[in-house]
Amino acid sequence: MRLIVNGFGVVGQSFAKLLLSRSEDLYRLHGVNPRIVACVDKGGCAVSETGLDLQRLLSTKKLSGTIGVYNPGNHIFDPLRLIEKVDAEILLESTPTNLDNGEPGISNIITAMKSGKHVITVNKGPLALAFPSLIELANYNNVELRFSGTVGGGMPILEFAKRCLRGDSIISFHGILNGTTNYILSKMGEGLTFDEALNDAKHKGYAEATPSLDIDGYDAAAKLVIMANWIMGMKVTIKDINRRGISQVTLSDVKRAHKNGKAIKLIAICDKRQLAVKPTELSYVDPICVDGTLNAVTFSSEYSGNHTIIGHGAGGIPTASAVLRDLIDIRDTIFERRQTADLKSD
Amino acid sequence: MRLIVNGFGVVGQSFAKLLLSRSEDLYRLHGVNPRIVACVDKGGCAVSETGLDLQRLLSTKKLSGTIGVYNPGNHIFDPLRLIEKVDAEILLESTPTNLDNGEPGISNIITAMKSGKHVITVNKGPLALAFPSLIELANYNNVELRFSGTVGGGMPILEFAKRCLRGDSIISFHGILNGTTNYILSKMGEGLTFDEALNDAKHKGYAEATPSLDIDGYDAAAKLVIMANWIMGMKVTIKDINRRGISQVTLSDVKRAHKNGKAIKLIAICDKRQLAVKPTELSYVDPICVDGTLNAVTFSSEYSGNHTIIGHGAGGIPTASAVLRDLIDIRDTIFERRQTADLKSD
Repeated sequence: MRLIVNGFGVVGQSFAKLLLSRSEDLYRLHGVNPRIVACVDKGGCAVSETGLDLQRLLSTKKLSGTIGVYNPGNHIFDPLRLIEKVDAEILLESTPTNLDNGEPGISNIITAMKSGKHVITVNKGPLALAFPSLIELANYNNVELRFSGTVGGGMPILEFAKRCLRGDSIISFHGILNGTTNYILSKMGEGLTFDEALNDAKHKGYAEATPSLDIDGYDAAAKLVIMANWIMGMKVTIKDINRRGISQVTLSDVKRAHKNGKAIKLIAICDKRQLAVKPTELSYVDPICVDGTLNAVTFSSEYSGNHTIIGHGAGGIPTASAVLRDLIDIRDTIFERRQTADLKSD
Repeated sequence: MRLIVNGFGVVGQSFAKLLLSRSEDLYRLHGVNPRIVACVDKGGCAVSETGLDLQRLLSTKKLSGTIGVYNPGNHIFDPLRLIEKVDAEILLESTPTNLDNGEPGISNIITAMKSGKHVITVNKGPLALAFPSLIELANYNNVELRFSGTVGGGMPILEFAKRCLRGDSIISFHGILNGTTNYILSKMGEGLTFDEALNDAKHKGYAEATPSLDIDGYDAAAKLVIMANWIMGMKVTIKDINRRGISQVTLSDVKRAHKNGKAIKLIAICDKRQLAVKPTELSYVDPICVDGTLNAVTFSSEYSGNHTIIGHGAGGIPTASAVLRDLIDIRDTIFERRQTADLKSD
């Protein structure tokens, strides 16, 4: 399977590393042989119809800061035209999340689907802003759209909800979907003020220099949109989320909660009454009351009770493993379609 | 789909109740229309080729203590011959777990498979004693063997491990697989002695009158066998488990652990070095360190890190929902096989 990788940051590079280290076992165990035939970053593009040399691609990125110098003399660079023209089955969209207008991800995804390519996105922006219409466009063009890595990094939160409870139905869910804010709130639980905890998170690399995406609940809200659409069959976008971040949470709030056996967590919730992201007091004995950068979600089902899943919701290699999961899933879907078509035409 | 239900205790009755309450939505949502055509308990059997009247079956059981009086004049009763002769697609084996020789479950399952019937078992005994050979027999007879309800009640622990982490691989797992012992240890954490906590568990209905199956770790070991075979591809039986129960855990052990920020839990573990069930000290911040009757398992994967799943590992309706999950899964498998066969013969 041939991929175009658009965006070559932490996840894109981790995916290339994963392919490098697993090239043999992927074919042996899963029957897939993924090749990256084009790669795009802010500085340019690298193209090879037979598959890019991933070792060289990674070292080019490391040395030059861009893969634009991978192909000497390659100066043509229109990412959308590249997505349209390069012969490939799948676009991996891994440009940074932009919750203002979803670009460049949204144009990349639309262009790929219109030219008959399946899409794996780890970029939440397009889904947060336009989930229902992107699914519609995928169906219309008879291509697959996958996004396992957008929620929970390598955690199979979406797979759990869709595949593990067949015959039952999920009636609501709530959880911690953002590791950065959970780290900050956990540190406040240890006695740091909000500013001290935020600085600590920045120092450890958990928070960006301008951390509004996390702190103000946008990241959790984007993930909530994806879950509400995919798991609950809603048709909502980020505008429909009632969102409040953690910047107003004070150390005295945290201490007051602690006296009552509770911790304050940034909880995303989807039930009959609300679709919201907000600081919420949780009992310490609640299974989702986890600390540090952990993510945790509890699904309430109609017949089998509550199910909680907990894991590290971020990281390059874990998220790259979610991309691989999506890739194998797309391969299976194509294979099933082809098999049926072949048998029918026999 | 026609089922024979052998064993009409809590799970068997819950399954009948679930079918009664969901008869319409099961067909509408999942395309299945399960009918119980024969039911067996210690007192006899009830048979109807067109499907038993579940309301009457349940009230017969309630009033008479057995469904043996459902068919007036029906005195023939050889359960194995019944499994062999009654026209049905699936046997639901729900007789009590027997870890000495697996009977009557093991004979029921073997008879069903040899007569071409798929099997769903919620009885751990046969799997704990003979997992590898039962799987072999199922393959040989071209039938499906499913057992989702044997581990974690309604929790999809087995599904999670098999379906949610494709492209990755699970390298080890450990967890709390028995709610009764977890309840007792949690109560000891609140200051009760072992005997007091055990009595409390009996009083609440969490422990049997002769609770050795739970207390001595047999139940957890049986579940560990199932997970080790199914998830890790091992070929082991309960004899291969290094097993130690909780009856030697004292209140002072629990208090000593607590001083170090730890709780004692009965942990089942499967990794490169060991296949064991034993009391283990866990840090309170470990996600699987859950209290009460909760079950919890952490899977360690090669690429996507640790994943924990937590839920209530028991209960009639939740376990019945796992049976339904197995049933839908078998239907899909049969359907796929038939579709391929039909297309090939076109």
